[in-house]
Amino acid sequence: MSDTPINTGVVANPFAGIYPFIMLKTIEWTGSAVKLLDQTKLPTETVYVFIVDKQQMWDAIKRLVVRGAPAIGVAAAFGAYLGIQDFEGTRDGLIQSVGAVCDYLATSRPTAVNLFWALDRIRKLASEAKGDVDGIKRRILDEAMAMLEEDTRICRAIGEHGLKLLEELPKKDDQINLLTHCNAGGLATVQYGTALAPIYVGAEKGLKFHVYADETRPLLQGSRITAYELQQNGIPVTVICDNMAATVMSQGKVAAVIVGTDRVAANGDVANKIGTMGVAIWAKHFGIPFYVAAPTSSIDLSLSDGSKIPIEERDRKEIIEGLGRVTAPPSVEVFNPAFDVTPADLVTAIITENGVARAPYEVSLKQMCQLKAD
Amino acid sequence: MSDTPINTGVVANPFAGIYPFIMLKTIEWTGSAVKLLDQTKLPTETVYVFIVDKQQMWDAIKRLVVRGAPAIGVAAAFGAYLGIQDFEGTRDGLIQSVGAVCDYLATSRPTAVNLFWALDRIRKLASEAKGDVDGIKRRILDEAMAMLEEDTRICRAIGEHGLKLLEELPKKDDQINLLTHCNAGGLATVQYGTALAPIYVGAEKGLKFHVYADETRPLLQGSRITAYELQQNGIPVTVICDNMAATVMSQGKVAAVIVGTDRVAANGDVANKIGTMGVAIWAKHFGIPFYVAAPTSSIDLSLSDGSKIPIEERDRKEIIEGLGRVTAPPSVEVFNPAFDVTPADLVTAIITENGVARAPYEVSLKQMCQLKAD
Repeated sequence: MSDTPINTGVVANPFAGIYPFIMLKTIEWTGSAVKLLDQTKLPTETVYVFIVDKQQMWDAIKRLVVRGAPAIGVAAAFGAYLGIQDFEGTRDGLIQSVGAVCDYLATSRPTAVNLFWALDRIRKLASEAKGDVDGIKRRILDEAMAMLEEDTRICRAIGEHGLKLLEELPKKDDQINLLTHCNAGGLATVQYGTALAPIYVGAEKGLKFHVYADETRPLLQGSRITAYELQQNGIPVTVICDNMAATVMSQGKVAAVIVGTDRVAANGDVANKIGTMGVAIWAKHFGIPFYVAAPTSSIDLSLSDGSKIPIEERDRKEIIEGLGRVTAPPSVEVFNPAFDVTPADLVTAIITENGVARAPYEVSLKQMCQLKAD
Repeated sequence: MSDTPINTGVVANPFAGIYPFIMLKTIEWTGSAVKLLDQTKLPTETVYVFIVDKQQMWDAIKRLVVRGAPAIGVAAAFGAYLGIQDFEGTRDGLIQSVGAVCDYLATSRPTAVNLFWALDRIRKLASEAKGDVDGIKRRILDEAMAMLEEDTRICRAIGEHGLKLLEELPKKDDQINLLTHCNAGGLATVQYGTALAPIYVGAEKGLKFHVYADETRPLLQGSRITAYELQQNGIPVTVICDNMAATVMSQGKVAAVIVGTDRVAANGDVANKIGTMGVAIWAKHFGIPFYVAAPTSSIDLSLSDGSKIPIEERDRKEIIEGLGRVTAPPSVEVFNPAFDVTPADLVTAIITENGVARAPYEVSLKQMCQLKAD
């Protein structure tokens, strides 16, 4: 734990709920500190913390102040810079120091793949960098900034491509009405997110949206995170229980579903938060398009189909006492798969940063992965 | 509130979880008291209370010690008897006293239709009864017993008819695997319930079942009540979040869905707890029968179709702070319909106490309502 107190500031977004559009940012570099939206305070408080040293960043990652694979990676890269910014000594001493800082930060969340990937990128950069100590320090900061911008650019590109699909949808009262499940929004990335990116990009251009957010049991990412970020970004949002989405569709309240993904197989089968497949079946039943936003990094061409994707089963307590109260007989059996796999034939299109893939996905996904982002 | 302390007794069911089959009873008459399962203690404790006077019964209904329309009606009838059992005086005085007791008990839950219906039945019986004071008292107790037996008989008959359908299902490891939504079990009735009745009747006959119980957001009747009563009655049960039922079906874990209903329209459209329609769509998608258990009292032939059934929208707090913690931005919009209407074409069969109705429901439901229970 850090001994340095974290600066916090409650920053109300004065434009929340109205246009012009203001984009909530998960991570920013202020020039001297990393400004993080404190996600442990969501959904009831909007508090930013200003991280100025490596211990504070370790603590912020550990305590889930920052969460979501892409966001953690970027935060850790900045943390590495904070850890060596005041280094004085030789070039070799600096490279050694970078290694030590990266080792230290890697212990904050031992299972976060993006964390290791980002820290390895910094470590590699430092060991291969030419130039003096100050030059290497600057290169590390530049690399963290590049990672931040890369994440933003990919999300933004998904937003642009996805928006073209959303613009084709029938509007109601000049508004595009959508349903989403779980959180594939800006709060898991630097900003924009994946599934929510087309909405944010559209809102920037003056389009109006309304989003139904499935609460997403058991961990309620929809009501806790998606509803929060949409509201903060001025997008009207309505929270529903997961089992109400069929009613929402039957009443013509939404024109399409858009969700994120954890992993897409080569045939277009989509692994995502539990409940996604059920939403896709309802969308098909009611004749509503079902879109998946997927950065090409989540497309795994080595998996022929979704049956190869391992599905984690999680703690029974998430269901029967996940909200602080025992809500079932304590000894009852529980089935708690964290993800499901939506078969490709229920997926209308997969939106990547390189364009929109449609069936046959065996062909189109390969193309997307070969393209460079425009 | 009653001044008389309620006798309570923690009674563990020594046979829970094993056969021979033991049936949990919501209401019993001991000869001197009404024994109620205290549903406020569920799902963590099995406690019975012994009600010996009208104040205690008023309090038990008020505090939801007893709940579920049929169960409340029967409990109130016994409460009326408890209120006049010690009456001494003239026949006219007794009739007046019955009226006063019924008026008093009717204030316990002002919107419970079955409560008024049951108390009116007692009131009418008393005013029309021939005989002396003791004879009328006995008639009132007999009427309460008759109501208890009638409810049990109807549920039992639904169980017998439904079991024939369940016996036709493919078994797995000699077991019939089912999924249910919400609670249409014995705890809303005297015993057996409606949707769960075929399972209990089958278990009595030595058949093996396994039930997946949707937790049923927002109020969790599935995890709190259905899981509890199945477990207590020795039926293996697995609790899942509502959004996991599609995965359960896709993995072949269940052979059919069986649910209760609040109201059935003349064309077979079925109003039931929110989420039921979604389960029915999934069942159709995966080719699994979708059965509805419905006492003929819930079939409303005056409604041509389900669009005529009014759908109550309930408090936003049930979704965003229903479990004691704020789980969404407090000012967020919420849509909270309490029920949905499953179109008749998704319903494989409707099981009544008079037999099984199938499409065309316009014809079969009318027949069911004209028949007498066998």
